[in-house]
Amino acid sequence: MNKADLIFAAGETSADLLYASGFQAPDRFIYFACLQEQAVIVSALEQDRAEKECKPNIAIFERNDFLKNEKASDLDVICSLAKSRDISEFRVPHDFPLALADALRKRGLIVLAEKEAFYPERQYKSNAEILHLSAALRIAEAGMRRGINIIKEASVNTDGILEWNGEILSSEILRSEINISMIRRGGFSNSTIAACGSQAAEPHNIGSGPIFANKTIIMDIFPRIQESGYWGDLSRVVVKAEAPDIVKKAYAAVFEAREYAKTLIRPGAIPAEIHKAVKALMEKHGFRTGRQNGRNFGFFHGLGHGIGLEIHEKPSLSPTGSEPLKGGEVLTVEPGLYYPEWGGVRLEDIVAVGANDCRCLTEIESFLEI
Amino acid sequence: MNKADLIFAAGETSADLLYASGFQAPDRFIYFACLQEQAVIVSALEQDRAEKECKPNIAIFERNDFLKNEKASDLDVICSLAKSRDISEFRVPHDFPLALADALRKRGLIVLAEKEAFYPERQYKSNAEILHLSAALRIAEAGMRRGINIIKEASVNTDGILEWNGEILSSEILRSEINISMIRRGGFSNSTIAACGSQAAEPHNIGSGPIFANKTIIMDIFPRIQESGYWGDLSRVVVKAEAPDIVKKAYAAVFEAREYAKTLIRPGAIPAEIHKAVKALMEKHGFRTGRQNGRNFGFFHGLGHGIGLEIHEKPSLSPTGSEPLKGGEVLTVEPGLYYPEWGGVRLEDIVAVGANDCRCLTEIESFLEI
Repeated sequence: MNKADLIFAAGETSADLLYASGFQAPDRFIYFACLQEQAVIVSALEQDRAEKECKPNIAIFERNDFLKNEKASDLDVICSLAKSRDISEFRVPHDFPLALADALRKRGLIVLAEKEAFYPERQYKSNAEILHLSAALRIAEAGMRRGINIIKEASVNTDGILEWNGEILSSEILRSEINISMIRRGGFSNSTIAACGSQAAEPHNIGSGPIFANKTIIMDIFPRIQESGYWGDLSRVVVKAEAPDIVKKAYAAVFEAREYAKTLIRPGAIPAEIHKAVKALMEKHGFRTGRQNGRNFGFFHGLGHGIGLEIHEKPSLSPTGSEPLKGGEVLTVEPGLYYPEWGGVRLEDIVAVGANDCRCLTEIESFLEI
Repeated sequence: MNKADLIFAAGETSADLLYASGFQAPDRFIYFACLQEQAVIVSALEQDRAEKECKPNIAIFERNDFLKNEKASDLDVICSLAKSRDISEFRVPHDFPLALADALRKRGLIVLAEKEAFYPERQYKSNAEILHLSAALRIAEAGMRRGINIIKEASVNTDGILEWNGEILSSEILRSEINISMIRRGGFSNSTIAACGSQAAEPHNIGSGPIFANKTIIMDIFPRIQESGYWGDLSRVVVKAEAPDIVKKAYAAVFEAREYAKTLIRPGAIPAEIHKAVKALMEKHGFRTGRQNGRNFGFFHGLGHGIGLEIHEKPSLSPTGSEPLKGGEVLTVEPGLYYPEWGGVRLEDIVAVGANDCRCLTEIESFLEI
């Protein structure tokens, strides 16, 4: 009796599956690895693409070749696989679909879910992966330059609202133009944040309505390169015309926090402690974190996160990150300060952890007023 | 002891969660429904957005309000939920993450995975949903018009390759321009197919390289509207200049097949039988389906699929569809013919099944040569 790894997911949404197979099908397919064999089982519709996209060591089976019954369920196919390879136990990712696992167990198979990462090595990036991530970051930077140029080109009307290209400049237009500039470069982003004023005080508010002068405009841009599947992530904050004093102070604190964090990120460092040190620095600058009337203020998200085939992956640079860094991680470093009264400030770079320190992959500069 | 529904997923990727909560967070959050209570449990980062986006009947809990421990795991939070509501049994979707289910079971909770649809009613669309789907289809049509206009505007060089805007027209450029025209209208599509010639013979090949005259160009456009979460889906095939006779014949067969299918789609009809009848019609036109040298040819995908908050959802208009239609379904109707020797033809409309028949939601016309 043998053991095998089993993934049943869509390559477009499961980073583990994409990592293992190289294949980005939009619909679910089966991947397995046992003894000397690694293979995918795909529908007729996907066979040609699978042959082109799968990593060279992966065998490709068409479902009907594998089990000659066009009505065969995924369960049937996996059971037939288990029988033909004499497999009694499958190791599966933590998010393997429960109903399928229960059905396999009912048929006498052992199904063990990994509690943590299915491929822990995904946290540690190869040079080839760092090139893919850097390419995605270059696209994010192109999008950011487009956004900054539009805000530069815009005029301010008598209501303090930006006008561009003959109309009111809105979050929607700014987001569209940023996304379009990235699409032309092969990067896709559906949820680019372009949020102004009090909307910028909500870190995940993507922004809507007019853009104002003298208020914080956060742009958080995270494209995925269609071809490689790797993500970029980049945030900047700017103010059109003069920034209020409190914003200037917050910007200075966040800028210092980001640079300070980079000096702390290195093999052996504990993510939770880095987060804590950055939070303490913010407090030294007078920026408290807390909660009032059911709303959070201050620095209330994690300092950063791993990035790769997922936009958010391990490790987390946050209070929950207790495992020391090892080297090879690629991480966002994105301190932020958010206060409903005046908006938000976030500056996000990406670093690659090296042997003794970390190296910043982000090239675009940071500035506040434009 | 009580029972509850439980979903743990990301609103952006779980249609069930979006359907239940209305909230499209990119990161995973908890949704539960028991007795008179429906609620989400979200991170501080998502609270403001959740308050704006969640359906009015949904209560919103911030994780830390719920369980005062910033290191609490999802498992801890769900166990605390179960205790506070005296819940002993959770009903979860078929794709609920296995590791979390196993951990909950270990703590003595019953976790039952739905084998089929978690919300079977999602198959049957309300008028409001049909409006959302139609809006997405209008965006797909705008993208298609952009693609068709570019092919119209293009000239043919001496190698039979299309040139547009001073350069060779490629699948990549065609796809980009289609996607950009949709982004400006609020529709996002990462995988638009613009495939020419032998690439069009592979239904899921998105296309790459130059576009040629006298060869089939399949455009399959499926944008998702960011705001509503609903999808559009639209395929057309065109040929620049003169189409070969075999392509004209295949086009006529597929056109007839699509219109014939629409006459069969009504309450009481069995999807598998509709598929079979359409396949038989193709054969009557001389277009056989089969497999040679490990490649499929003919009509080798399903006739169509449900569409809604997922691009592919139930019911399937394919050999596996054995449940009769009831009325209220919204379905793609997309017969196709594919032969490596000359390419592929696919024509895809969307229909809404009514009380006695179906109504076509797609408005854009079909033609072959441009």
